Amino acid sequence: MSELRKDPIVGRWVIVAPNRAERPQDIVSQPVLQTGLPCPFCEGNEEQTPPEVAACREAGSQRDGPGWRVRVVPNKFPALRPEAVLETRVDGLYETMAGVGRHEVIVESPRHLASVSELSAEQLGEVLEVYRDRLVEARQDRRLVYGLIFKNFGAAAGASLAHLHSQLIATPTVPLHVREELAGAVEFLRREGKCVFCRIVEQELADRSRLVLESPRFVAFAPFASRFPYETWVTPKRHATRYEQTAAEDYRELAHVLRETLCRIERAVPRIAYNYFIHTSPFDTGPFDSGEPAHYHWHIEIIPRLTNVAGFEWGAGYFINPLPPEEAAAILREAEERSPETPKNPTAGSG
Amino acid sequence: MSELRKDPIVGRWVIVAPNRAERPQDIVSQPVLQTGLPCPFCEGNEEQTPPEVAACREAGSQRDGPGWRVRVVPNKFPALRPEAVLETRVDGLYETMAGVGRHEVIVESPRHLASVSELSAEQLGEVLEVYRDRLVEARQDRRLVYGLIFKNFGAAAGASLAHLHSQLIATPTVPLHVREELAGAVEFLRREGKCVFCRIVEQELADRSRLVLESPRFVAFAPFASRFPYETWVTPKRHATRYEQTAAEDYRELAHVLRETLCRIERAVPRIAYNYFIHTSPFDTGPFDSGEPAHYHWHIEIIPRLTNVAGFEWGAGYFINPLPPEEAAAILREAEERSPETPKNPTAGSG
Repeated sequence: MSELRKDPIVGRWVIVAPNRAERPQDIVSQPVLQTGLPCPFCEGNEEQTPPEVAACREAGSQRDGPGWRVRVVPNKFPALRPEAVLETRVDGLYETMAGVGRHEVIVESPRHLASVSELSAEQLGEVLEVYRDRLVEARQDRRLVYGLIFKNFGAAAGASLAHLHSQLIATPTVPLHVREELAGAVEFLRREGKCVFCRIVEQELADRSRLVLESPRFVAFAPFASRFPYETWVTPKRHATRYEQTAAEDYRELAHVLRETLCRIERAVPRIAYNYFIHTSPFDTGPFDSGEPAHYHWHIEIIPRLTNVAGFEWGAGYFINPLPPEEAAAILREAEERSPETPKNPTAGSG
Repeated sequence: MSELRKDPIVGRWVIVAPNRAERPQDIVSQPVLQTGLPCPFCEGNEEQTPPEVAACREAGSQRDGPGWRVRVVPNKFPALRPEAVLETRVDGLYETMAGVGRHEVIVESPRHLASVSELSAEQLGEVLEVYRDRLVEARQDRRLVYGLIFKNFGAAAGASLAHLHSQLIATPTVPLHVREELAGAVEFLRREGKCVFCRIVEQELADRSRLVLESPRFVAFAPFASRFPYETWVTPKRHATRYEQTAAEDYRELAHVLRETLCRIERAVPRIAYNYFIHTSPFDTGPFDSGEPAHYHWHIEIIPRLTNVAGFEWGAGYFINPLPPEEAAAILREAEERSPETPKNPTAGSG
């Protein structure tokens, strides 16, 4: 029998309907990504992208030449551009703003890898530090108020190139979904005197039925009102408003947890497509040194793209999830790597 | 150059980025729907569905036998069920509600047709009256507060069967997207003293750049902050809160406008997939005879499924639309049928 579950942050309802998984078409087939070479993101093909804006490079290597580990370039087809002039126009009811912003591609390996699982935790840790650097850099542009880091992995998740990469889009308005979370979190703080994300982490660590894995400082869990099969959130256990203020030594630990979570999702469903994105605080929540705002708590949302989003979801803003998150988490807890070359569950805490 | 446009009802921003249409992968390929026979929705195969809950039948035909024009059956894999007992459960932070509701399939033709364009306006008019009847019926269940009528057309839009059909899902909570529209509309009414949808219709009829077509009582237009290429809304010109209170003689006129709009979309992009859904007032906005609430205005949203919804959209709640709605509307105005068997633009008003 199905049930409705309410997301405690934004109040979105999800229908958990296990019976619907019997529908043969419920899990969509994965289109195959066209991966014609030469790949513009491979080392040696740097001239095929716009000039780089940042890179982690070997000593002595040249900008826009080989010798990098992570490379950041403007998106060739940008949704928003820094050179646009911020102006708004009102025509009767309607408001338009010039497309000011940043749209960057973070190329996560010089080799033609496709999946995060092919990176070491150390390599992914360096990528996560580049995410921080791009957010800190975007924040310098006073016209912008938010930076969203996201990854499209697999054609069904909207990737247009197979080579391992993420993107940053920095915007002059706070994204709707972040505003919804902020509004829910402020309301929760007012009512309960505590950060709603901290309370979620507390309940998940106590309950453990939706826990995927944990390290001393981070936890990965299937959210109670998961919209998608194998949806998993990764977040710091302790209150932390901004991703980009994570202590330098913690990115490596986060990389372990994120990488292991993604590896388990890929083991559970081979050739799965997914998106992940970082929800962090808007740039304008006070200066870095003014202390932690009490209500917001950064997190990474991983959303596998296995189910069709159809008329009901678009019309209602409801989701129908055929896999209860407790079952998803149990499968992901069991999907630990057994191969000899990787230490067993390197980051899991003792719980 | 791209621009950001704000939806005047819910405040959602859309990035209109025409340059991104150049990306070869921006328009997704349409998966082909498997259409193995026997089709459970075809006349003669009635025993393959659950027993019908309503039908438009020829005199003398038998329930669950042939002789129907429109037939309504419970969904074989229901997301929600009427026989569930409404109860809620709270576990710490989390709230769960039993999956009470209705999930029905409205089979729109006894013949194995796929597209609304294959129905006559008269046939579609009868379907639109069945939509009304299902909403009126669902409203009798006092546990339910909303009924969403929606269509998935084409595999990319989430259809699992090709045979022409729509669905009703009636829920014990008001869907998030409807709540967002209601909140925006109430706020607009408070501020401006008028229904925001009435104001939109006024501006679109005066401006005409986003107009697709109109009849004496209805208008089809590309919304200013369209999320998707060829997104089109159909709505009554005069203030009307509830779809199901439309005057009986007006469903036929609505059918002309809706059918012609869908035909033009299919002519503009052959083999397009789309969803449409009706946004009408929740059941509990007072009894039918208490007069029209002033703020809400029913409408049909048609959303073609040509673009990938990827990490940015899921993470931000922003949309990137490569086709400006003024261009989409111009294309749809030009996509009038020219074939001799149909009168030219039968329902368009003189404007």
